[in-house]
Amino acid sequence: MSDIRGRDFLKLADFETAEIDDILKLAFEMKREQRHWSLKGKTIIMLFFNSSLRTRTSFEIGAAQLDAQPVVLNVGQDAWNLEWQEGVIMNGNSPEHIKDAAKVLSRYGDILAVRSFPRMQSYEQDRQDPILSSFSKYASAPLINLESAVEHPCQGLADLMTLREIFNQNTRGKKVVLTWAPHVKPLPLAVPHSFLLAAAMGGCDITVAHPRKFELEEAVMQQARKIAAKTGGNVKVSHDQDEAFRGAEVVYAKSWLSLEHYGRMEEEFAYRATLPNWTVTEEKMALTSRAKFMHCLPIRRNVVATDGVLDHDDCVVYQQAENRLHAQKALLVKMLGES
Amino acid sequence: MSDIRGRDFLKLADFETAEIDDILKLAFEMKREQRHWSLKGKTIIMLFFNSSLRTRTSFEIGAAQLDAQPVVLNVGQDAWNLEWQEGVIMNGNSPEHIKDAAKVLSRYGDILAVRSFPRMQSYEQDRQDPILSSFSKYASAPLINLESAVEHPCQGLADLMTLREIFNQNTRGKKVVLTWAPHVKPLPLAVPHSFLLAAAMGGCDITVAHPRKFELEEAVMQQARKIAAKTGGNVKVSHDQDEAFRGAEVVYAKSWLSLEHYGRMEEEFAYRATLPNWTVTEEKMALTSRAKFMHCLPIRRNVVATDGVLDHDDCVVYQQAENRLHAQKALLVKMLGES
Amino acid sequence: MSDIRGRDFLKLADFETAEIDDILKLAFEMKREQRHWSLKGKTIIMLFFNSSLRTRTSFEIGAAQLDAQPVVLNVGQDAWNLEWQEGVIMNGNSPEHIKDAAKVLSRYGDILAVRSFPRMQSYEQDRQDPILSSFSKYASAPLINLESAVEHPCQGLADLMTLREIFNQNTRGKKVVLTWAPHVKPLPLAVPHSFLLAAAMGGCDITVAHPRKFELEEAVMQQARKIAAKTGGNVKVSHDQDEAFRGAEVVYAKSWLSLEHYGRMEEEFAYRATLPNWTVTEEKMALTSRAKFMHCLPIRRNVVATDGVLDHDDCVVYQQAENRLHAQKALLVKMLGES
Repeated sequence: MSDIRGRDFLKLADFETAEIDDILKLAFEMKREQRHWSLKGKTIIMLFFNSSLRTRTSFEIGAAQLDAQPVVLNVGQDAWNLEWQEGVIMNGNSPEHIKDAAKVLSRYGDILAVRSFPRMQSYEQDRQDPILSSFSKYASAPLINLESAVEHPCQGLADLMTLREIFNQNTRGKKVVLTWAPHVKPLPLAVPHSFLLAAAMGGCDITVAHPRKFELEEAVMQQARKIAAKTGGNVKVSHDQDEAFRGAEVVYAKSWLSLEHYGRMEEEFAYRATLPNWTVTEEKMALTSRAKFMHCLPIRRNVVATDGVLDHDDCVVYQQAENRLHAQKALLVKMLGES
Repeated sequence: MSDIRGRDFLKLADFETAEIDDILKLAFEMKREQRHWSLKGKTIIMLFFNSSLRTRTSFEIGAAQLDAQPVVLNVGQDAWNLEWQEGVIMNGNSPEHIKDAAKVLSRYGDILAVRSFPRMQSYEQDRQDPILSSFSKYASAPLINLESAVEHPCQGLADLMTLREIFNQNTRGKKVVLTWAPHVKPLPLAVPHSFLLAAAMGGCDITVAHPRKFELEEAVMQQARKIAAKTGGNVKVSHDQDEAFRGAEVVYAKSWLSLEHYGRMEEEFAYRATLPNWTVTEEKMALTSRAKFMHCLPIRRNVVATDGVLDHDDCVVYQQAENRLHAQKALLVKMLGES
Repeated sequence: MSDIRGRDFLKLADFETAEIDDILKLAFEMKREQRHWSLKGKTIIMLFFNSSLRTRTSFEIGAAQLDAQPVVLNVGQDAWNLEWQEGVIMNGNSPEHIKDAAKVLSRYGDILAVRSFPRMQSYEQDRQDPILSSFSKYASAPLINLESAVEHPCQGLADLMTLREIFNQNTRGKKVVLTWAPHVKPLPLAVPHSFLLAAAMGGCDITVAHPRKFELEEAVMQQARKIAAKTGGNVKVSHDQDEAFRGAEVVYAKSWLSLEHYGRMEEEFAYRATLPNWTVTEEKMALTSRAKFMHCLPIRRNVVATDGVLDHDDCVVYQQAENRLHAQKALLVKMLGES
């Protein structure tokens, strides 16, 4: 019966396992369509600094199913660029400061939801999530993170929900592999971070498999270990994908960038060219204990994983995407609804 | 009492005349506002690979009038480019495959509606409607074609509804001319194809008037002739616009490209420069039996038809545009509603 | 009990003070949430020829709170460019004429709302508001101006509402300064014009403070003087910002362009470089009678006004932005609702 009304939802790491469990309990009720939940009269304003298919669509539909009003603003396209640095003389490209936009939108909407990807110049700066932090500082309405540099907590919610479904609610001690995979672009750490924390909250026996130099952020690894210590889980790291896969019950594939080359793309891809192939294939999946295959989507087929893996019965990526809808609806009701 | 629930609505040619009639019967009831139809709780997801004014607006408003939730995604703008080729290694510009987008969106929406114009490289490829076909193959939700290379069936529905209004439901044997008209761009065949099929379903006495080399697709001409054979209609071709107009009761103007020059725009416009003027003028309209003037809009004034024709009392283009709303609402109810 | 149903809302200058008062009376009731007003079944179509944050969001949310359906079209992006000149041969970039778009959208929506900024080539042409005028001429649905070259009447409504709140409804004779401020771009006159008219309707003692060559349009100044003559107000001009601020009870800051250099940006900014600093600072605000600070937003901090002014307790810009919502909802109900 935890109460998260009035709080921001920026990182899984900010929440107790019991609070996340409480949201998911409601999400399962919603998926079973046990009754109609109504947020009539409430407005959800979504600001996308980066484009989106699943996140936008699932939030828009979820809000509408709850009788709430979704409003989508594509910053720099429908709207305009927003300044986030404090105290600057605003004679450049940004006609409005986040401080002002956040205060105004807080008067129009009951929740603000923001997607803002990292700028990839400096991880020290990006991990401060300057845009999200500015909104959090100035918005009086509660804020939802729709993916930032450090976390994608709505994806994490859906991922833990999916793990619960796979293991019939009993996720403790289950062997889950989060594996790095190739990609044509350097991708943020948000999804692997949130999955790691979600699986730790589920008490899973987690192996993070990746080539050397692709370590996740150490602070997040420590958060995950701390959570796992309480939930009966465990967090290991492996640099050998085949070994990690042996006996796995879930394989979660995701590409992410190397913090060692952060923002120096050419250097990173030169290093990647020296690696063995980390694409998830049917041969590698055959090493597992008939693991379910997870990915947050969108996925580059035959780069991250082969068609054979994705089109296999053990692939649960669509179920995972559907769970975004249920988990987010539950989140909205928990953040806005009657107690 | 035909039942089209669960079926895709991709081409008029896929439906029996009786099925189309059934949709239009409901559309007329809706236009008379005889009662309120509700699709409460249903979600209509629209994907625009190409921009739209009427189609998007009329669908969005129509869905809302039925208490359903419309969601609009502008692919490559709000969202991103989608890959449609099977089995490719996705290391190019498209971060997501239609296969995956279709399966995910089918879990979010009750109907997917897709607009995808031809690429104008090869008609053999375009007539397969690769994007629409991929959606149809992989989406579990029923699909509506919002205009593809070959057909614009929602426009066809509205056009047949308008013909019925013009002739007080009795369209059989009415002299209808579909005339080619000039334009500054090579335009797809979708609208003339769907109008031809719609008029054939109405049993009209149709003349397709166009300069040589502007033949419609032969397969569609044959479909129309086959339909007309059942409905008491008739399909002729004329290369003489004046002669075609004589005695006409409806003139439907539309520009389309030449399949003989498909994708070779300079060649096509060099050929067009040798043609007499096919713009529809008041002088030409004076040859008809006081024909109503139809066009799907948008129309380039004084290129396709003159201001005098468009601003004349016999011009029914706004009525035609309004009928999009009623016909599409009826289609949604037939596809989704209770039996 | 004035009735504005069926009329366009293009300029404050087109309305009697009593009619504006009537709208605001309802706006205050709405802000106090005295009861639920419903426009169920009504559709509000918004066309943005220029981007927007507050206007779009506040209209979208306001419409939804009234159970109406908002539809947003971004012209030249979601939709396409529209031709507005009469009688032209449309062989250029615009595939559709406003005449046709207006007539079609009038059949889909109950109100059309249009934002169209000036083109900045010729003020003589811009002050005709060619796009808005074309819509007004051809749309059968009533029209709302979401900001044109000459006026931003929805902002004016919210501004007068805010003045009423500041002075507990009693605005007559209150000392209000509308001051020009610096900016990196030449901005339209719409907001200062509408504020001037709004303050005149409130019977305020208005000083328009600006450097020489930044005169507002003379016709609007005369409209304001004519209104003030009836409401007990007054309109003065000052070229000395400090003197104007002395004793002021409200300072409304806004940048606008110089009609003397209209469209000749380099010339204008060379002239601006010769001016003293007109940025509103805490030092200047200290000259006032503890004036409230107003601005329509977005505002360039430390260019138009300093952080110190904007983050001060006497700054009412967020209240002003919120009033957009209430004022516009009242406007919609007055334009569409039951009598």
